[in-house]
Amino acid sequence: MAQTAKRQQRPNPDDVRQVILDATLRLYLENGYAGTNTDEIAALSSVSKQTIYRHFADKDDLVREAIRRLIAAAEDQGAESFDALAGSDDPARDLRIFARQHLRDVIQPDIMRIRRRIIAEVDRFPDVARAWYDAAPKRGQEKLAASFARLQERGFLRMEDPMLAAEQFNWLILSGPLNRAMFDAASVTDTSRHAAYADAAVDVFLAAYGAGRS
Amino acid sequence: MAQTAKRQQRPNPDDVRQVILDATLRLYLENGYAGTNTDEIAALSSVSKQTIYRHFADKDDLVREAIRRLIAAAEDQGAESFDALAGSDDPARDLRIFARQHLRDVIQPDIMRIRRRIIAEVDRFPDVARAWYDAAPKRGQEKLAASFARLQERGFLRMEDPMLAAEQFNWLILSGPLNRAMFDAASVTDTSRHAAYADAAVDVFLAAYGAGRS
Repeated sequence: MAQTAKRQQRPNPDDVRQVILDATLRLYLENGYAGTNTDEIAALSSVSKQTIYRHFADKDDLVREAIRRLIAAAEDQGAESFDALAGSDDPARDLRIFARQHLRDVIQPDIMRIRRRIIAEVDRFPDVARAWYDAAPKRGQEKLAASFARLQERGFLRMEDPMLAAEQFNWLILSGPLNRAMFDAASVTDTSRHAAYADAAVDVFLAAYGAGRS
Repeated sequence: MAQTAKRQQRPNPDDVRQVILDATLRLYLENGYAGTNTDEIAALSSVSKQTIYRHFADKDDLVREAIRRLIAAAEDQGAESFDALAGSDDPARDLRIFARQHLRDVIQPDIMRIRRRIIAEVDRFPDVARAWYDAAPKRGQEKLAASFARLQERGFLRMEDPMLAAEQFNWLILSGPLNRAMFDAASVTDTSRHAAYADAAVDVFLAAYGAGRS
């Protein structure tokens, strides 16, 4: 009880971090990296600059962490379908579930906006772009490759290079809606063809990599 | 001979257009749509503004035409492999030739730079982005779908929806190197894995859509 009372007096450090990172992400999306500064982050998150520097080293740290957190939130939403995949007894069904969930996780207005912003600034801020690439497509594909390797051990898939197969599956699922979203921002909310698109990706994937049992 | 002499006196209108469009593309890549203006285009191409307006209606017309011409140049390079595909007697071979050529045509520094620029400006200049999308991925996929339909008639492929299959094949070929290039500009010149990537795309595609004869 004493601890609870203490918490109410002093804001939870995690909450403070979250408020600061939300402000950072919003400013970065609106103004880009060069147009984001700690004065505005402090004003928008209603904390002092000292508080910001107690939690983060510098602007670079803030922007990277804001991006990392956005990606992590999307990943958390999809974590269940990744786990279900590796241990699946019905890959044809669970690959479909995964593919549909993957589209829902990635083709989101905020994620598409930040993706566009990062691509726009790749020449000026290559480190931010590299951090995104490593965290978003690359890490997802590595997790997927690990699931495929397990499914292969269990006799459901047959492939020489699980990392390549994961990359192909990832882009078979995402590329149509993703590239449309890059060039037509309004298309993000049109999910009418997503399920059919996800299912078609699974059909192609299984034709290439399915084994007898799948 | 008289005509040749005349041409030397008065510049060929096609050459003038090309010089103006080259200048437009260069300024657009450097400064974006808002930062491109006809005064600078005139200065960079060493023609008068009157000359520019004799060839083009306005800035919008100039930028669209510059983009269209860049895409057309890439398409011309790839036209032969498209044609060869539709009439192929050995699709397994000619799909490989096509896929490798397609990567060479698209993963080029200028095309990747303009793609990034257009994505960066999609909110402010949606018409430019739409023009790119229609000309670049969409038109290519339509041509590919027509080739697949012919190969299907001839017994080499089997698919319900050639347009969907064309979209999948296009992204199976391009997505890995293309997305790497979006987030890592230097990767454009690293083509060491392109051939293997193209061949793997064909393997997956044929596993899904190959018929007895292919």
